[in-house]
Amino acid sequence: MTEPEEVRRIGLENVVVADSEISYIDGAAPELLYRGVDVLDLAEHSSYEETAYLLWNGKLPTQDDLDEFEKELAERRGLSRGVEEIVVHAHDDAVPMDVLRTALSAVPIYGDSGDSDREAALSVLAKTPTILAALQRSRQGDEPVEPREDLSSAENFLYMTSGDEPREEEADVLDTVLLLHADHGLNASTFTSRVISSTESNVYSAVSGAVGALKGPLHGGANQDVMEMLLEIRDGDQDVETYLANKLERGERVPGFGHRVYSEMDPRATVLKDMSERISEATDAPWYGLIEDVVSYLEEEKNLSEKGISPNVDLYSGSVYYSLGVPIDFFVPMFAFGRSAGWTAQIQEQKSDNRLVRPRANYTGRHGVEYVPIEERQKVEQ
Amino acid sequence: MTEPEEVRRIGLENVVVADSEISYIDGAAPELLYRGVDVLDLAEHSSYEETAYLLWNGKLPTQDDLDEFEKELAERRGLSRGVEEIVVHAHDDAVPMDVLRTALSAVPIYGDSGDSDREAALSVLAKTPTILAALQRSRQGDEPVEPREDLSSAENFLYMTSGDEPREEEADVLDTVLLLHADHGLNASTFTSRVISSTESNVYSAVSGAVGALKGPLHGGANQDVMEMLLEIRDGDQDVETYLANKLERGERVPGFGHRVYSEMDPRATVLKDMSERISEATDAPWYGLIEDVVSYLEEEKNLSEKGISPNVDLYSGSVYYSLGVPIDFFVPMFAFGRSAGWTAQIQEQKSDNRLVRPRANYTGRHGVEYVPIEERQKVEQ
Repeated sequence: MTEPEEVRRIGLENVVVADSEISYIDGAAPELLYRGVDVLDLAEHSSYEETAYLLWNGKLPTQDDLDEFEKELAERRGLSRGVEEIVVHAHDDAVPMDVLRTALSAVPIYGDSGDSDREAALSVLAKTPTILAALQRSRQGDEPVEPREDLSSAENFLYMTSGDEPREEEADVLDTVLLLHADHGLNASTFTSRVISSTESNVYSAVSGAVGALKGPLHGGANQDVMEMLLEIRDGDQDVETYLANKLERGERVPGFGHRVYSEMDPRATVLKDMSERISEATDAPWYGLIEDVVSYLEEEKNLSEKGISPNVDLYSGSVYYSLGVPIDFFVPMFAFGRSAGWTAQIQEQKSDNRLVRPRANYTGRHGVEYVPIEERQKVEQ
Repeated sequence: MTEPEEVRRIGLENVVVADSEISYIDGAAPELLYRGVDVLDLAEHSSYEETAYLLWNGKLPTQDDLDEFEKELAERRGLSRGVEEIVVHAHDDAVPMDVLRTALSAVPIYGDSGDSDREAALSVLAKTPTILAALQRSRQGDEPVEPREDLSSAENFLYMTSGDEPREEEADVLDTVLLLHADHGLNASTFTSRVISSTESNVYSAVSGAVGALKGPLHGGANQDVMEMLLEIRDGDQDVETYLANKLERGERVPGFGHRVYSEMDPRATVLKDMSERISEATDAPWYGLIEDVVSYLEEEKNLSEKGISPNVDLYSGSVYYSLGVPIDFFVPMFAFGRSAGWTAQIQEQKSDNRLVRPRANYTGRHGVEYVPIEERQKVEQ
């Protein structure tokens, strides 16, 4: 086989590296489909578990399929003693994404690996919220709460963090936020999971790699930045306009706007915007009002919509997590909780028609550098 | 900025994704340079530490530079209690690469993260052999041996596995094997570490992702396959010719031949071949003789050299590790030990001129799939 012609594409922009039937993004429409189903329909009617089933299997489950899938997840929620100890012994200032990456990576080394990629993927989906809840509690000085098998993933997570059964509205909100984050094409973390899988490595390698990529501030993390900004505005003595004018004058970006793919408002952001408004009203919280002030100011000062820059999903999701009692440094891990459904779907798709990923670097270094004995090196210019 | 034209390149073959000054591979010459210096010169004159310094800094160190670098490594060799417990509590049947990935990922969660990418990279280089030695000992039922600061990386590793100071020849052999594996362009694990770094994530994320990728049988692992083959031949009752004829008839590949990049014999393989021969002679071991029989048979039956297929680095490295007392399922982790120098060099290079890696998938799935209520799904064809 002859090599294809050399192409130079730093950042791989617009390079198609895989065929995928999993998610479709039309940034101009704007539209996001999971396996052909509009994410807006899923947000209204579906659940996180049903959406995960859809992403994995390419079709919506029958009631029997869904019951079986939920059972397979629920019975894998518990952590082995080894994994739980990693989590509860993490130092109080440990970054939650570092802990999540480590704990997921550790699952197979304490006898809990599963017999197939599918079983490992079920374990990842089932154990991610258990790990996060245990970490949240241990940081507060509380014992972890054992998972329950009779609750949904969203309900069970809220139960494990508080020790009390959650109110239905709270669980519904979390369920929808999770499914909205479940997949989004070949972002850097999903691509990482596919590159690792292309060596035929295991699911734990691929998912812990993806968690590591999502940890990076250029990928996850903007929802945390938004929330910190809203808290600064609330707790400060400047009005929104003055705060933002100063921020822009310092050359800082206002987080929560724009997306590499969407020119119109991201459909996920539309759903989260409504949610943020509803929750702020119901709980008498200032977040939605502050966000609206931020949007108005930037629209007026910067003509965002003319430039094709819209509020994005991160502008609204932070306030929703905050209202659910999620600590700010757990916002990115919550993103990972939702996205684990997509990672594991894409890993399984990669493995079903695999090709090793091996790009090239263009060597720009020197040639023919002599190995000079160390005692002579002081004198030479290298 | 307008998007560049869409390119389709599954597997990213011949796609240049980065400029790099670190390693240069000329598969036809054949030649492998680290920062311009021929790897054959390094194998003859240099050490693993000096080579790591070269890969990181782009020049050979002065004696003062090298002393300082070796000191920085040596003082980071110890494991925190949390990391050590992960390793010693791993189940006996845990895959060593799963343990290594987890233990490196865990370094920052027990208060040991380092204050910069460079410090984290030093920790990775320093702690990788400590983790592997502790795992090897705990699997044998022995307590880990504390690292010593007065030994080289290779000496200290052999000391920590056996509890005794190694013979100089053994440490020299290991030192050379490590530096020969220290970097090799954008293979899948190194590329993984760069993709993860491109989100500005931390060094532990990038390296644990790389370990996960190297774990895959399409990437690391061939040296283990070679050794298992040699042991089967030694312990079986067939001569080499019959064994291989049967193996080929079953449609199995003979491991240890061919490389995506090299058409002539890989310079690293040339060094390892000499080493394997020397050690087999000195220890009266059958490995080099068996390897030569395998090469002769395949050359005669398959005309390998006419096809541009040569013995590769994995054909010889396995027998060298085996002679050093490394268990077979630690061969790939030993590859990671050497390669950690290159991973950390490439991570630092990626971060010095970063661009987020975000390719695309080509959507081949359906559009406009209706969300049918679950109670109606039995009846519909999806």
